[in-house]
Amino acid sequence: MIRINENFTKLQSSYLFSEIAQRVAEFQKSHPEMEIIKLGIGDVTRALPPACIAAFEKAVREMAEDSTFRGYGPEQGYAFLRESIAKHDYQARGAEISAEEVFISDGAKCDTANIQELFADDVKIAVPDPVYPVYVDSSVMGGRTGEWEKGRYKGMVYLEANETNGFVPDPPAEKVDLIYLCFPNNPTGATIGREALASWVEYAVQNKALILYDAAYEVFIRDESIPKSIYQIPGARDVAIEFRSFSKTAGFTGTRCAYTVVPKSCRAFDSSGEAHALAPLWNRRQTTKFNGVSYPVQRAAEAVYTAEGQEQVRELIDYYMENARRIREGMSDMGYTCAGGESSPYVWVKGWQDSWEFFDLLLERAGVVCTPGSGFGRCGEGYIRISSFNSHENVEKAMERIRSALQSP
Amino acid sequence: MIRINENFTKLQSSYLFSEIAQRVAEFQKSHPEMEIIKLGIGDVTRALPPACIAAFEKAVREMAEDSTFRGYGPEQGYAFLRESIAKHDYQARGAEISAEEVFISDGAKCDTANIQELFADDVKIAVPDPVYPVYVDSSVMGGRTGEWEKGRYKGMVYLEANETNGFVPDPPAEKVDLIYLCFPNNPTGATIGREALASWVEYAVQNKALILYDAAYEVFIRDESIPKSIYQIPGARDVAIEFRSFSKTAGFTGTRCAYTVVPKSCRAFDSSGEAHALAPLWNRRQTTKFNGVSYPVQRAAEAVYTAEGQEQVRELIDYYMENARRIREGMSDMGYTCAGGESSPYVWVKGWQDSWEFFDLLLERAGVVCTPGSGFGRCGEGYIRISSFNSHENVEKAMERIRSALQSP
Repeated sequence: MIRINENFTKLQSSYLFSEIAQRVAEFQKSHPEMEIIKLGIGDVTRALPPACIAAFEKAVREMAEDSTFRGYGPEQGYAFLRESIAKHDYQARGAEISAEEVFISDGAKCDTANIQELFADDVKIAVPDPVYPVYVDSSVMGGRTGEWEKGRYKGMVYLEANETNGFVPDPPAEKVDLIYLCFPNNPTGATIGREALASWVEYAVQNKALILYDAAYEVFIRDESIPKSIYQIPGARDVAIEFRSFSKTAGFTGTRCAYTVVPKSCRAFDSSGEAHALAPLWNRRQTTKFNGVSYPVQRAAEAVYTAEGQEQVRELIDYYMENARRIREGMSDMGYTCAGGESSPYVWVKGWQDSWEFFDLLLERAGVVCTPGSGFGRCGEGYIRISSFNSHENVEKAMERIRSALQSP
Repeated sequence: MIRINENFTKLQSSYLFSEIAQRVAEFQKSHPEMEIIKLGIGDVTRALPPACIAAFEKAVREMAEDSTFRGYGPEQGYAFLRESIAKHDYQARGAEISAEEVFISDGAKCDTANIQELFADDVKIAVPDPVYPVYVDSSVMGGRTGEWEKGRYKGMVYLEANETNGFVPDPPAEKVDLIYLCFPNNPTGATIGREALASWVEYAVQNKALILYDAAYEVFIRDESIPKSIYQIPGARDVAIEFRSFSKTAGFTGTRCAYTVVPKSCRAFDSSGEAHALAPLWNRRQTTKFNGVSYPVQRAAEAVYTAEGQEQVRELIDYYMENARRIREGMSDMGYTCAGGESSPYVWVKGWQDSWEFFDLLLERAGVVCTPGSGFGRCGEGYIRISSFNSHENVEKAMERIRSALQSP
């Protein structure tokens, strides 16, 4: 008899963003006249940078001629892209990462979830709270948690991020094996300083733990004192895997390209305590279960690293950061306490009620979609996340609507 | 302590095609003057159909303007593509599959491997022998086999395909839970008739088993009496998941687009014997761990279903089939027994020696790369697979070179 993976039955309701999409669809159906402004899901809205488009088009043309056509590429990604990444995103910032340590993929979401396949079933996992739901849900599916109980999964360690610790949790007192960290954080927008990040690396070294560092939003960091990569911290190469994406950097959410860095010295252990390098395991996983990213997409991503590409990306990010500033100022002016929105596209707003209630209120009274903080975990209760990925006009309009909605009785 | 998934240590040597690539690279290094002809990995060589290029380019242009830009698409794929597939590939052939049952992905390799996440750790898996290595290696990584012993993994059931059964194995006498089938077969090129396929569906119904049907090469079937889809068999909707790809159909190996069909009535059971629909589980897996296929790529795939696209695909396949005919005839003329090459791009050639020896001989004496049959399993020993994915000129040249190499002392 073919039996299901019963861990799936532990999963709570549907994936957060599907639930939001459903509520929005229902509201839209009953209010077809209402023009809804979406500041919910962290999805970019502006066109790809012209440099990326030009490279994308050129590569599509190559696919049109037998002489320049490309079939299967390397599962790890083309050398041209891996080298550009290693050089610009790491070596130029003093982080010694080589091209062979960079694995191209179609999304950081896939990679942060699939990476768990490299580890034993019973490793103890720590996740921030609030947290991007993918880390948790994929842990549940993989059987690395217990049952859902009182709003949390048993067997998981939740690293609480709140006003008291400035949304940057300290390493836990207990021993954990696998730690998901995300900075600039989704959803709180918090960043982590060099010293705090070094304490995490130190914890991983001391406890033979591994850090899964999600740096998908690093492009929003402009303050040179804040690390963009965990590899800017000495010793991190041995104890951390880093995830990056072109989604937020260059508007690739619908184009799909990301990468994962597994340094050669990064290790985990077998049950007899012997160390194994993780790079060959990830390489084996990817060569067996993945077939590489679309060639024209890799060319489009490579263009991000040209001089024009860099300038265009900077303009793109400036644009969203201006939105973040307006949202943060607007909500602060209305008396709400806000975090994030400075080195991050997300503003984390403390409300005066339940998160879904606040969500419904903004949807129904202002036609604005945000993301309820409680969808990210228990510590997100009472908060909402407002995303800056939209046009200036829509953000202005949304802020006006929220202002009148919240001020009307 | 972070522990590795020790199932990885059971895996035998490196992935087949990486091993081939390495031998070829070594040979090329010591014979830089030799122009090597690759009839090894099943990788297409001809340009994308013009209809696909036009749609691809148009979609890239859409990504260049804010007003037509697309961010995250549905994880399951865009409705435009799911609907075209359901209509043309299924409904038009009498198989009742709806658009909601079609899940778009970036590769059949990913899907045939990732699908295992839906099932319990200890399901009994049957795979053909010879077999596409991904089914086996992903079963090993997922801990669904025992150790490697005498050329096979313990705990797996091997369905032997050989000259006696015309390379189409019968359902086994014992009970298995999950069955990988692939027709037209990779590597043997065999197809399965309606009656034989019906016996597999019957087996799955009787034994509450599930069939994973890999139909990546269906486009090579021209004989109307041979089923292109398992859903042409009554009852298959309840017991089979089907995998398809644009890789071989329309030359998408480097462009990346595929799909998996999970009918709403397809089920598996929990430990108490209660049936669960698999479509919602796969949907949950994909929405949590995948972010959809690149939008321009989906538009390119959609163009396959236009009138021009269909005609161009037919020409493309005709071209490769002419190669397959020449390879089969050539090898037969030299006295080798051949299978495949008629409803398949692969010719399965029985040699007079060990597979890797035959491989090395063709590489070293003819500069032709094939795939050693033993790389696909014990029953592949003594065979090689020759792929028709190359130009007519190269296939002609390869056949001439093989002829002189094998005839010289």
